[in-house]
Amino acid sequence: MAALAGVSPGAVSKVFNGTGRISEATAERIRDAARKLSWRPNAAAIALRTARAQAIGLVLSSDSKVPGVGAGNMDFISGIESVLSPREYGLLLNVFISGQHDEHHFYRTLAERQRMDGIILTNSMVGDTRPELMTQLGLPAVLVGTPWKPGAIEYVDADPPGAGIAETVDHLVELGHERIAYVSGPKDFVLPVQRREAFVQRLAEHGRQPHAVVSVEYSPARAAEETTALLAAPVRPTAILYGTDTMAIAGMRTLQAAGLRVPDDISVVGFEGLTLGEWIDPPLTTVQRFAFQRGRAAAAKVLTLLGETVEEPVPLERPALVVRGSTGPAPR
Amino acid sequence: MAALAGVSPGAVSKVFNGTGRISEATAERIRDAARKLSWRPNAAAIALRTARAQAIGLVLSSDSKVPGVGAGNMDFISGIESVLSPREYGLLLNVFISGQHDEHHFYRTLAERQRMDGIILTNSMVGDTRPELMTQLGLPAVLVGTPWKPGAIEYVDADPPGAGIAETVDHLVELGHERIAYVSGPKDFVLPVQRREAFVQRLAEHGRQPHAVVSVEYSPARAAEETTALLAAPVRPTAILYGTDTMAIAGMRTLQAAGLRVPDDISVVGFEGLTLGEWIDPPLTTVQRFAFQRGRAAAAKVLTLLGETVEEPVPLERPALVVRGSTGPAPR
Repeated sequence: MAALAGVSPGAVSKVFNGTGRISEATAERIRDAARKLSWRPNAAAIALRTARAQAIGLVLSSDSKVPGVGAGNMDFISGIESVLSPREYGLLLNVFISGQHDEHHFYRTLAERQRMDGIILTNSMVGDTRPELMTQLGLPAVLVGTPWKPGAIEYVDADPPGAGIAETVDHLVELGHERIAYVSGPKDFVLPVQRREAFVQRLAEHGRQPHAVVSVEYSPARAAEETTALLAAPVRPTAILYGTDTMAIAGMRTLQAAGLRVPDDISVVGFEGLTLGEWIDPPLTTVQRFAFQRGRAAAAKVLTLLGETVEEPVPLERPALVVRGSTGPAPR
Repeated sequence: MAALAGVSPGAVSKVFNGTGRISEATAERIRDAARKLSWRPNAAAIALRTARAQAIGLVLSSDSKVPGVGAGNMDFISGIESVLSPREYGLLLNVFISGQHDEHHFYRTLAERQRMDGIILTNSMVGDTRPELMTQLGLPAVLVGTPWKPGAIEYVDADPPGAGIAETVDHLVELGHERIAYVSGPKDFVLPVQRREAFVQRLAEHGRQPHAVVSVEYSPARAAEETTALLAAPVRPTAILYGTDTMAIAGMRTLQAAGLRVPDDISVVGFEGLTLGEWIDPPLTTVQRFAFQRGRAAAAKVLTLLGETVEEPVPLERPALVVRGSTGPAPR
């Protein structure tokens, strides 16, 4: 093949592995020779020769035995694929089931199988030990989110700490709300920790204190329970932020079932920007995230770690408040 | 390594590739020798030697340029992983973007890269040419859903034709509904075609005709439009079935915005069984599907095609009607 094209085997490898630099004219000559010979590179042979699997791993976490990983994940995956696929990198998906998998064993096995050249990790955890583990395992890794310990791992910070929260607090304060509660996500993830801090801080900048801050699993049922508890207290909030859109929808339903009108009696804010939020009554005010772009940015970063040239910068849109019908002036 | 364990290289390969049969005692001796030597099989070398990639491909389709693949897919993927992962098979994810990818080129490229031993296809299409293409490409394939042409491809029929629809029609007829409309999914997928047929047939068994049957994309916005059109007609339906839960939620909101009470004035039924359906007002009557089990069954089937022994049968639960608050007696 190389002989027919009049080039070295190394040049052939460059064209079909997408590694190294080669002139477009030479590349075309090689592709032409390949077509004439009906020659196709064997992916396994390439992987062995170049010690590259030509694949990126993605670990999604799941919290129950029959897991329902978040809806936003599919946009995120599509974003990753949109960067990997044109470069002929595969995407190896792995679902980590907490309570069932041992974390170190899980990642060690992934590394030992040598099926991936790099890995994308999600769900930045409080006290996360994965950054050190990836270094130990020699697996180039990118974390999506802010790492618990700075400098321990490369990351893509699509949600800068507290993004969207300050705007939400400003919006509610402008509407005259003084008793704002936050039914937030789990204690062991970095994202909700940052959001709670941003919430308290922004309220303080307005000279206010939170009405209440609670931390629960990402579960509509738990959000409903906490909403009921907030209503049972002697003084009720006039606005509630929730950790996710689905939690907010469950919370809103609980409020309505208790005879409260949203937003006349109480305002509600979600977090994520699910399309569905537009279709409930009233439509949900929420913080819109951009999962597709987050996926693109993570994939570009991990390819860069592998020495690939990723030309186009991937712009990251900061999560933004979308005001719909579930927030209104504080009740008089 | 083989020498230390006192076995043939073939036996070592059997243990680490999981291919062929070997006694547990011999396997343990080999693993022991591997531990002593800190020897680890190189996945790429194994793939080359055994001509196996030890990976299964999954193709998910997406309909827009910035795609949002359905929420149920994550449970489906978790189900696949639960079968592949213990057997050390990887899951290679590929997102097919219709209107952007050429189908034949897309699948040909997947096959040529030789990164997967078999493939799981989703979204059975009307006039699907993929079954023949898979045969041409020599790629063992399992379709999730009923194939358009019988016998062309192995499949897992987790939703037997029209499952859940007959029960839904019976439920509405028992409640006294005579004007039942169906805002159903796209014309080019097999599943909605089957459901529409089941809908018409079951109504006929009750001696009735459908009030209206329309076919639209899986889109809440389109469902809302069709709902408005149904309300504008001289005679309105007393019950509407929708192609998905999100379509039903958008439809319900449209009805409520038009001043109709659900279910007092009109009943609404979804399809999927999203948790969120429990949290809207009124809670959504729907047909519950079982995506996790569907994933398990598909993975088991494709491994079986590859000659792997998959011991446990994977039971498939037939989609079932879940009656909640959005259906009630026909208005007088």
